[in-house]
Order: sequence, then C-alpha cells, then structure tokens
Amino acid sequence: MNRLITFEGVDGCGKSTQLQRAATWLRGQGHDVVSTFEPGDTGLGKEIRSLLLAGEFVPVPETELLLFLADRAQHVRDVIVPALQSGAWVLCDRYSDSTLAYQLAARKLGQGAANLGQMLRFAECGVSPALTLWFDVPVDESMRRMKQRAESGEKATRLDDEAISFHERVAAAFGRQYASEPERMIRIDAEQGMDDVERQVTGELTRRFGLMA
Amino acid sequence: MNRLITFEGVDGCGKSTQLQRAATWLRGQGHDVVSTFEPGDTGLGKEIRSLLLAGEFVPVPETELLLFLADRAQHVRDVIVPALQSGAWVLCDRYSDSTLAYQLAARKLGQGAANLGQMLRFAECGVSPALTLWFDVPVDESMRRMKQRAESGEKATRLDDEAISFHERVAAAFGRQYASEPERMIRIDAEQGMDDVERQVTGELTRRFGLMA
Repeated sequence: MNRLITFEGVDGCGKSTQLQRAATWLRGQGHDVVSTFEPGDTGLGKEIRSLLLAGEFVPVPETELLLFLADRAQHVRDVIVPALQSGAWVLCDRYSDSTLAYQLAARKLGQGAANLGQMLRFAECGVSPALTLWFDVPVDESMRRMKQRAESGEKATRLDDEAISFHERVAAAFGRQYASEPERMIRIDAEQGMDDVERQVTGELTRRFGLMA
Repeated sequence: MNRLITFEGVDGCGKSTQLQRAATWLRGQGHDVVSTFEPGDTGLGKEIRSLLLAGEFVPVPETELLLFLADRAQHVRDVIVPALQSGAWVLCDRYSDSTLAYQLAARKLGQGAANLGQMLRFAECGVSPALTLWFDVPVDESMRRMKQRAESGEKATRLDDEAISFHERVAAAFGRQYASEPERMIRIDAEQGMDDVERQVTGELTRRFGLMA
C-alpha cells in the first residue's frame, strides 16, 4: 500500500513542524514512520543540496530543475521505496509539487514545454504521493515568518532570498495544483495556530486512511 | 551560424587528441575556436563531474542521467552559447550522443520511455550540434588503449571501470545514432594512425563548412 504523504507549501507555512507532529501522532498509533525531506536526504543528495542552495555557483534554471530531479530520483530509490516496501509510512517534506512550483512556475520555465510534467514523473521513479497536504498561508504571512526565522539566526538559502514576486508565483502554482488534483491534494489552512493545524492534519489522515481518531 | 562540432566515441577512441588537433588546424586558418568538454567545464559543472565520476556516492541510473543533463544545461548557457554568439567555433568533447549511449543505452534506461529524447533536447537549451564526428574504434581496441593509459598512471573514472558488456552497449548505441542521423553524424575510422585520422577530420570540416583545404 502506498503510504507516501508529501507536505507542501511555501517556506514558513509550518509544514516541517506539522510533519514532525504527524509522525509522532502516527507512531503513537503504533505505525512505523520514516520522516524525510527534499532536497538532500541521501549521501549524494546532501552534495546536490549544497550545490543548489549554498550559492557559490548559481545554476541556470534548467540546471536547477535537473539537480532537484537528480536529488529526487536518488531519494526515491535509496530511501522512499525501501521504506514503503518495509510497510512504513513515509512523510516527505517537499516533493514534485515543490519542483513544479519553484523550478517551473516561479522560474517561468514551464511555459510551452509539454514534456516537463513527464520529466517530473521520470524523477519520481514510479512513486507518486498517496496524499499531499498543502499548507496554504498568504505570502505576506510566510514572508513575516521567514523574517522572524532570519532574526532568530536561521540561515537563509539562495531560494529564500528571491523577490516577493517569485514567492507569489510559487504560491499561485500550489493553488493551481490543488485545483487540478483535488483527489490527491488537500488544502490545510495554515494561518491558524499550530494545534489547530495539527487537528486538521490528523483529521485528514484519519479520514483518508481509515485510522483511529 | 551554428559552429558547434561535437566529438563522440568510446573512451580511447582518440577524440580528445583529434579535438585539439582540429582546434589548432582551425586557428591556423584564422578562426576563433573554443575547445571544451563534458561533463565538468563550468564552475558548477566541475562539482557535478566529481559527484558523477569520483565514486564516493554511486548515483542510481536516473540520477546519473539527470546530473549529466544538469551539467549540460549549465555548459550550454554559460560557455557554448556565448562562444557561438561571439562567432567562434565550439569543439566539444562529448555531448548528447554520449548521454544517449552511456546513460540511456548502456544503463538500459531508455527502454520504453518515449520522453527521454525530449529530456536530452531540454538539456541542450536549443543548441544541437551542426556536426558530430563519431570516432569509431572496436571495443577491444578501445579497452587495450584504456589499459595502456591506466598503466601509464592515468586515473580511471567510475564509468571506465564498467564491464565490457557495458562498453559494447555504448559502442552499439553510437552506431545506431550514426545510422539514424547520417546528415549530422560522420563516422571517422579511428583505428588508423593519428595523422590519418586527422586528415579525415580536416577533410570533413573542409567539405562541410566550405573551408580552405
């Protein structure tokens, strides 16, 4: 059974916190859970991540896309597939929807290229999410939260530093994905407090997978 | 005018030597020439090359393909396009035909995936070779030459160390490419001595581009 759940949204939407809470909740119900993220959660992926985000060399948009996809294929085959085959739940912080939002839509790379969706599928090596939780938060709120993080000393990546118009294109792309795949993707109102968001998440998991409430 | 000429073939076919000789010959005729290679002839590409060939982490086949393509896109936009726009000839040691031969055919990744050709085109960012010289040498001769190089102290890469069946699939793929694109691709008999091979190369360039003999 496919138990890959992806957590998506703009930076500052709270998805990483909620992923950890969902993992704890699922484990509390006796399930095996693998928490993971993209890019960079394999040995090779860590190197790719540093090429992508550290900023020493700025990749052209096509290279940026291809590096994210390279990281994904390694992640799927080395981490996600073995975990799913062992019967674990896999909770993944960012996956193909992020690539579509950041590398295609926000970079305006997707225009007129019908094969880009196929490239996203190729990198997934056959493993699409059973469910995607989209943590929807207005861009200005997301920017406010990222600013707070920066003030508390968290290092920004090259993508964090993009102009607000970039982040608006990212957010709009998540919205379009949600509209086009309402079966796979669930919108979570991420402007609420963390406990309220967690209740929405566990409620959705309960309903979708027939878990105990 | 597109003056991108790619030099292709198995390792040990002599293409790198011939590329340097062709560059010298063209410069002797008063042309600007940029000699370059893949993977790894940009700042970012050098990092990607070391991920691909140094062997600390072994990429899965999909990741290997995507990393070669990531390197290419950066190379095209940072090096090849500016050189062509300046009016230079660009002689490139390996390009998409190598990716097709090594990452798709030899890894058996290409079977049944109609979109892989489109991925190769995507990474080219619109720049296909005006001419491709395929240095054809039997696999056993290529292996003999590589063994000589190893004995003279040249370090082998992860791909050099593949089994002979891998290199046979590479060679067969170059042959199929040649058969399918006879206009773009020229077969050079690379079993001959280096001076004879050079005469073939300069002869082809003269004929194709209307240069002085």
